[in-house]
Amino acid sequence: MPGKHFQLEYGKKVRIESIDPNETGALHDREEAEPNIERLSERLEALQNILYAEKKQSVLFVIQGMDCSGKDGVVKRALGGLHPQGFQVSSFKAPTEEEAAHDFLWRAHKVVPAKGMIGAFIRSYYEDVLITRVHNWISDSEAKKRFKHINRFEKLLESSGVKIVKIFLHISKDFQLAKLRNRLTDPTKRWKFDKNDLVERESWDEYQKAYEDVFKQCSSASAPWYVVPANHRWYRDWAVLQIAVEALESMSLAYPESDPELDQLLDQL
Amino acid sequence: MPGKHFQLEYGKKVRIESIDPNETGALHDREEAEPNIERLSERLEALQNILYAEKKQSVLFVIQGMDCSGKDGVVKRALGGLHPQGFQVSSFKAPTEEEAAHDFLWRAHKVVPAKGMIGAFIRSYYEDVLITRVHNWISDSEAKKRFKHINRFEKLLESSGVKIVKIFLHISKDFQLAKLRNRLTDPTKRWKFDKNDLVERESWDEYQKAYEDVFKQCSSASAPWYVVPANHRWYRDWAVLQIAVEALESMSLAYPESDPELDQLLDQL
Repeated sequence: MPGKHFQLEYGKKVRIESIDPNETGALHDREEAEPNIERLSERLEALQNILYAEKKQSVLFVIQGMDCSGKDGVVKRALGGLHPQGFQVSSFKAPTEEEAAHDFLWRAHKVVPAKGMIGAFIRSYYEDVLITRVHNWISDSEAKKRFKHINRFEKLLESSGVKIVKIFLHISKDFQLAKLRNRLTDPTKRWKFDKNDLVERESWDEYQKAYEDVFKQCSSASAPWYVVPANHRWYRDWAVLQIAVEALESMSLAYPESDPELDQLLDQL
Repeated sequence: MPGKHFQLEYGKKVRIESIDPNETGALHDREEAEPNIERLSERLEALQNILYAEKKQSVLFVIQGMDCSGKDGVVKRALGGLHPQGFQVSSFKAPTEEEAAHDFLWRAHKVVPAKGMIGAFIRSYYEDVLITRVHNWISDSEAKKRFKHINRFEKLLESSGVKIVKIFLHISKDFQLAKLRNRLTDPTKRWKFDKNDLVERESWDEYQKAYEDVFKQCSSASAPWYVVPANHRWYRDWAVLQIAVEALESMSLAYPESDPELDQLLDQL
């Protein structure tokens, strides 16, 4: 199944509910997925090497999703094979005082991946049109303005060679509950539990609506949104790797032209 | 073989020449090393999870070595199993104009790993007492001053909970030549070749001397130098993992105290 399967048509209204978070495509279980995941992971590493050598373009994965959708996990399980020197992860939490004193794109702009680099945003500037809307911290007209700012910001990045890949990890509300329970009972995960997650959970439907608006207002052919079913972690990992590999393959990456002078050097060595 | 095997006695003069870059300890080949590498890697990931959860301490790997000693490779092969969200790699190249307009520790200070994080410096502020000395850009008395600045800087970091692990990847001059040849002939590696590496290679002995001075002047019980034989990459990876695991094990890491209120929450979920 190609990555395009998960890509939303841009500018169209999508109902998240209509997408099955339990989907596993043509794959039946983790065992069947493993060799595919391994193959894609190796391919992605090879492409990263060319991207890094070329130093003309970069890749930005924007990873969004409800609490427990597996945003941290996907960075480790699907993208963890990338060379750490060329891979930079940024987590966006509540803004600091300094961040809040700037426009909402300022802190994201600072950590956009440089040429040759791959970046992953765990949450992103999209939170500024998600949590803020769900809690009515901003008006609808302010949200509309922000959609435009985001679209122009992404155009700027694209014009500088940044390939933007926006991924929404799609889970069900029941699945979230099971994961929250698991966090409370597993001593190696309990530290991740945040009482506030229960508060946000109450606004589940409002979040889905806010996301649907984002998908409609902030998609383009060059920077589309992908909705990845994530109730099955192994399928999530396979799908994200598939999308990632296709994204890098579309960039016409090439090793830099070789300096013929170097051949003479080789003879002297 | 414990990581301590690679640790230099602090304050003592060491002759790098006396250490065999071909050493493989009790291991005979890559095949024998693999299961050990895997076991150590899993252990390191588990320790990283506690470090990240605890958020009270951090770890800084300072990775130094001659060109082709495998500084980039070790970050991928030995430390690549770390969760990318909690692992941050910084490469130090020739200073930018802004960096050069500050003291030599300024740019390093900015990227010191925050509490909960693991950082790796590929090259570091130690270059300011290595390449600079080899080319006589600084005097011996300036170098002595810098040693003191470095020692005080490392004390500051330690006082804030940073565990500093300094690793010198030790290769032979012949091995470097073979690797340089390989870079020139392998089309996926040719982009890494820098003609300047040949110039630096001519100062091999001066570099070894400058390193020996660093080891003598900038070691302490809490921030020692480790010399890792690196002609065999699999041994290098095993040794660095062994050192890393022991470093984290020495930090008395613990998950944060659990909030008993959460148990009541669980009943309500």
